[in-house]
Amino acid sequence: MKLGRLNHVGVATPDIDAAIAFYRDTMGATDITEPFDMPEQGVRVAFVNTPGAGGNMDGTQVELIAPLGENSPIFGFIRKNPLGGQHHVAFEVPDIHAAHDWFTGRGKRVLGTIRTGAHGTPVFFVHPRDMNGMLTEIMETPRHD
Amino acid sequence: MKLGRLNHVGVATPDIDAAIAFYRDTMGATDITEPFDMPEQGVRVAFVNTPGAGGNMDGTQVELIAPLGENSPIFGFIRKNPLGGQHHVAFEVPDIHAAHDWFTGRGKRVLGTIRTGAHGTPVFFVHPRDMNGMLTEIMETPRHD
Repeated sequence: MKLGRLNHVGVATPDIDAAIAFYRDTMGATDITEPFDMPEQGVRVAFVNTPGAGGNMDGTQVELIAPLGENSPIFGFIRKNPLGGQHHVAFEVPDIHAAHDWFTGRGKRVLGTIRTGAHGTPVFFVHPRDMNGMLTEIMETPRHD
Repeated sequence: MKLGRLNHVGVATPDIDAAIAFYRDTMGATDITEPFDMPEQGVRVAFVNTPGAGGNMDGTQVELIAPLGENSPIFGFIRKNPLGGQHHVAFEVPDIHAAHDWFTGRGKRVLGTIRTGAHGTPVFFVHPRDMNGMLTEIMETPRHD
């Protein structure tokens, strides 16, 4: 496997509207998507777009995620980190099934199954204990339009 | 201020050689710099280069940092997170002094002073409590050759 693009940094927040206001007013973000619910994942999501090396807005995103309901997988994270914080990193791969075989073949624990991620492509998560302490999302590359 | 490029994600590790081997052998990184010591910061550093949206190796880096001595500012982080983990994020700005004025003018606590960062340009760090729980590095844009 070859290391893919760092698609996004997942940042958990207790209040997505406040986080959007922070990125807009304090960090100076000019391109933030409308937040949307992902009920099957238990999160509300918005993307903060950032410039890439060439100056286009195609850099690594900040993916803001807020808990949606008490069964949210990030409910515990927010309880432990009431201000929010860095939650996961997501790297792109060309083929999600080949990547799944790669990681499981190396004894890495995949959390749950392959599912559809916030970018509409299949993703899976690898246990932080097997990944140097970082919850790591592996996602099939979205089409860059 | 306008949001700049997400230059790198700072990842703390107890063992930089093991972390380099992990990124090379498990994550498939093909471009990792030689580690080097920054005694004045108390860290040993290596950069994992990643592809950007255009396919060049100009994406957001993973900055591996390991403690250098017991006075290292990340010694406590590693004690609390023995496997390592996400430590900070770093955004680029065109002018470090203007950015310093911007953040302090908004009541954000800057940790220490402006210093020379691992990329050779001036940087400062903003307190995670004032930044939605994320230790945030603000760095003057390195020259992209």
